[in-house]
Amino acid sequence: MSNDKDDKQAADDALQLGLVQTQQAMAATGQRAIVVLEGRDAAGKDGTIKTLTEHLSVRNTRVVALPKPSDRERGQWYWQRYVSHFPAAGEIVIFNRSWYNRAGVEVVNGFSTPAEQAQFLADVPGFERMLVESGITLIKFWLDIDKDEQDRRLRARREDPLKALKISPLDAVAQDKWDAYTAARDAMLAGSHTPDAPWTCVRADHKKQARRAIIRHLLRQIGPDKVAQEVKKPDPDILFTFEPAAIGDGRLAR
Amino acid sequence: MSNDKDDKQAADDALQLGLVQTQQAMAATGQRAIVVLEGRDAAGKDGTIKTLTEHLSVRNTRVVALPKPSDRERGQWYWQRYVSHFPAAGEIVIFNRSWYNRAGVEVVNGFSTPAEQAQFLADVPGFERMLVESGITLIKFWLDIDKDEQDRRLRARREDPLKALKISPLDAVAQDKWDAYTAARDAMLAGSHTPDAPWTCVRADHKKQARRAIIRHLLRQIGPDKVAQEVKKPDPDILFTFEPAAIGDGRLAR
Amino acid sequence: MSNDKDDKQAADDALQLGLVQTQQAMAATGQRAIVVLEGRDAAGKDGTIKTLTEHLSVRNTRVVALPKPSDRERGQWYWQRYVSHFPAAGEIVIFNRSWYNRAGVEVVNGFSTPAEQAQFLADVPGFERMLVESGITLIKFWLDIDKDEQDRRLRARREDPLKALKISPLDAVAQDKWDAYTAARDAMLAGSHTPDAPWTCVRADHKKQARRAIIRHLLRQIGPDKVAQEVKKPDPDILFTFEPAAIGDGRLAR
Amino acid sequence: MSNDKDDKQAADDALQLGLVQTQQAMAATGQRAIVVLEGRDAAGKDGTIKTLTEHLSVRNTRVVALPKPSDRERGQWYWQRYVSHFPAAGEIVIFNRSWYNRAGVEVVNGFSTPAEQAQFLADVPGFERMLVESGITLIKFWLDIDKDEQDRRLRARREDPLKALKISPLDAVAQDKWDAYTAARDAMLAGSHTPDAPWTCVRADHKKQARRAIIRHLLRQIGPDKVAQEVKKPDPDILFTFEPAAIGDGRLAR
Repeated sequence: MSNDKDDKQAADDALQLGLVQTQQAMAATGQRAIVVLEGRDAAGKDGTIKTLTEHLSVRNTRVVALPKPSDRERGQWYWQRYVSHFPAAGEIVIFNRSWYNRAGVEVVNGFSTPAEQAQFLADVPGFERMLVESGITLIKFWLDIDKDEQDRRLRARREDPLKALKISPLDAVAQDKWDAYTAARDAMLAGSHTPDAPWTCVRADHKKQARRAIIRHLLRQIGPDKVAQEVKKPDPDILFTFEPAAIGDGRLAR
Repeated sequence: MSNDKDDKQAADDALQLGLVQTQQAMAATGQRAIVVLEGRDAAGKDGTIKTLTEHLSVRNTRVVALPKPSDRERGQWYWQRYVSHFPAAGEIVIFNRSWYNRAGVEVVNGFSTPAEQAQFLADVPGFERMLVESGITLIKFWLDIDKDEQDRRLRARREDPLKALKISPLDAVAQDKWDAYTAARDAMLAGSHTPDAPWTCVRADHKKQARRAIIRHLLRQIGPDKVAQEVKKPDPDILFTFEPAAIGDGRLAR
Repeated sequence: MSNDKDDKQAADDALQLGLVQTQQAMAATGQRAIVVLEGRDAAGKDGTIKTLTEHLSVRNTRVVALPKPSDRERGQWYWQRYVSHFPAAGEIVIFNRSWYNRAGVEVVNGFSTPAEQAQFLADVPGFERMLVESGITLIKFWLDIDKDEQDRRLRARREDPLKALKISPLDAVAQDKWDAYTAARDAMLAGSHTPDAPWTCVRADHKKQARRAIIRHLLRQIGPDKVAQEVKKPDPDILFTFEPAAIGDGRLAR
Repeated sequence: MSNDKDDKQAADDALQLGLVQTQQAMAATGQRAIVVLEGRDAAGKDGTIKTLTEHLSVRNTRVVALPKPSDRERGQWYWQRYVSHFPAAGEIVIFNRSWYNRAGVEVVNGFSTPAEQAQFLADVPGFERMLVESGITLIKFWLDIDKDEQDRRLRARREDPLKALKISPLDAVAQDKWDAYTAARDAMLAGSHTPDAPWTCVRADHKKQARRAIIRHLLRQIGPDKVAQEVKKPDPDILFTFEPAAIGDGRLAR
């Protein structure tokens, strides 16, 4: 292995160690965290979660990737099926897609009414503020990729039989409806970025860079002091707090 | 049976019929309702619920009287265990005590911290607005009794072996801490009475009157038009919408 | 009120008191009970439950009347949605209809396959033995009415608008398919009557008698010693342990 | 990369592809599977699960690693909290430790009574037969390692800060109580190995070999015909169906 590779491995190990120490501290204090991972199809959510959970405790970490709602659930309060997976003391829950479905895939594909979608954006800041004020740490990542990269990944997915289970009927329209997804993303980020629950945007075209940046951000946010202070700030070209100006200034893929 | 008794029975039957027709309409449209019943010990919550559910469908009506939280639940988001009982399409859920525990019994007896209690009152208007805006009908009743009546009922409870299961360790302090409960009630009503989710106060010293008034109110709120329009307004001395002035003007027991 | 009425009221009160004392004892020891109520349409299950729960604790008693399964539930293990309602320490759970749907209404109306129904009857003895050996008290009542009485009740139901919510689409065929229901009942009772979990049959044509007999049986089965010993044995013409000979000997309605 | 490495990678890819095709077939037919992974501390359960789920669908696959029961759960039916995670149509659920806790860790460490443990072993064959006869595929793996290998892994765990979250208080006694765990394992395997739900034993001292053998076994058991038929039988020195003679003949570590 080259020295360069050695160095990268050492850096990755240090980040993983930070996650381990963070979870140890959380288990000791009872701190709870919800991590939301959103992004277009093929943005790298699954892989990011595998990296995040590499060394975490299987008993204190839960990854939630909900199937489509049952007929009964469709008649319930929209938030109900998400709330039932929220963390108990000391737990980290990672949502692989989340309540933000209503502001993304549902908007673009008409799976709910415009009124429901508008209601969602009206509700989300208050809902998330409640979570945060109850002491739950809520960290929301938007994984952003550009159109060509998504195209490459979706093609690779279709050509690689090992990735067959990642293919969804919606993949087919991800490129065709690219602009609609962009508009939905912009409205979602603008409407749900709040002081209590800000969005962290991640340029995810380069997977490893993105994952390192995400871990760095997590450690700085929820790590115990000695961990948080030693982690260097993620590269601002890779990971940055959303701000309205980011819409249209080229930092988010169009 | 005297004519007077006949008349009363006929009136009660008409009210019960209204509830039946309301639930039929809800089942047809998928409308959902949450009814919250709060009040001091012995205010008549259990009996009211028996009257309300007398002729309702056992499959579309659920009465929720949660036991004390488990150790795991105590580490979860406060609202989580309530949310898991919310109604599906066409259902009525009646909470026999509810999330308002945090603003009542917990305040008076120190079962949670003042910070948690303050947070609760800060959160509840937004939370309930979300419910209401999602299309759930939320109706909150405060059953109010005066101090002597509570004393009589708690004594009767202690003397009647059939009521032994209604006795809780907190009964013993209900009279001693009367003023603390009054203060908690006032703060709770004032802090959680909103245009979206107003409190309806019910003078419950006379049980039958109170129950009739409650049904009338429900029918006018959630009954189909033809039911709602025919029900006479509850006597305002028995049932009235909370308003801040009610604190101290003698309408709520002190 | 006549002396006779006074006597009956006193007897009913004594039975209710027995239930109260039973639940007090269960709460103290952590004992758990499941009560299953089965019977044809209009056999009196709802009313029996109201009588049983008249004075029981709303927090330690749960009545479970499940709505039809969701699409997701239909793909799950048949027993799963029932198991999720089983009692915690000190609780009584009353099933208003139960897993026995598969041996009754589903058989007669073809809601499941004959193979599934046969599997159910093969499984149920082992399943219930597990429950019983885990320390849960399981008491199963079959409320039996004769054909004319069902006819009267279903007619009364159709004519009484207060009972509108009790009407189900299946009522219409209850009389026409009387014999098929009889056959299903016989196969169910014969196939699931075991030493661990016997069926108790109740002649329910006379509602009050039936309810008193049911309470007596419960008290003798799950009451604390001093309660159980004082309760007289239910009239064997009203309540009797199922035995195969009961099929065809006239004790069960044909 | 050497040719040998290339070959191994190709073989691994073929196995992973088999898993993908298996899940595709299951999603199409609605087939359900429960995979139980048991074994001593450090036997390789977590790593095996990561390999199994490498390319599976996050929405149709659930990994269940339950935390210790809550106080409320401890009062419930033992099986209840496991049943609530059983698969819906088309799902694979992998239990990382399971109901078999009662026959292993609880026996050795006295976390339940001998009567409860005996009851468990009496119940488990019937319970699992019910699952299997309902159409759920149940596959149970015992990952077996020898004492020296466990010692090495537990030491490595203690020395590698990245593995800190894998350390449990019970690790400390795993070696000291080796023989008690052996006896518990033998009793568990002998008592719960049935025609419906046999145990598959895996020599897991060599991790990669073990994982390949496990995948091969799964594919032959639950793969669609064309997958199952092409997979070679796992090496019988690595993976073999339990039989009573295996206790004491040297195939299972002592």
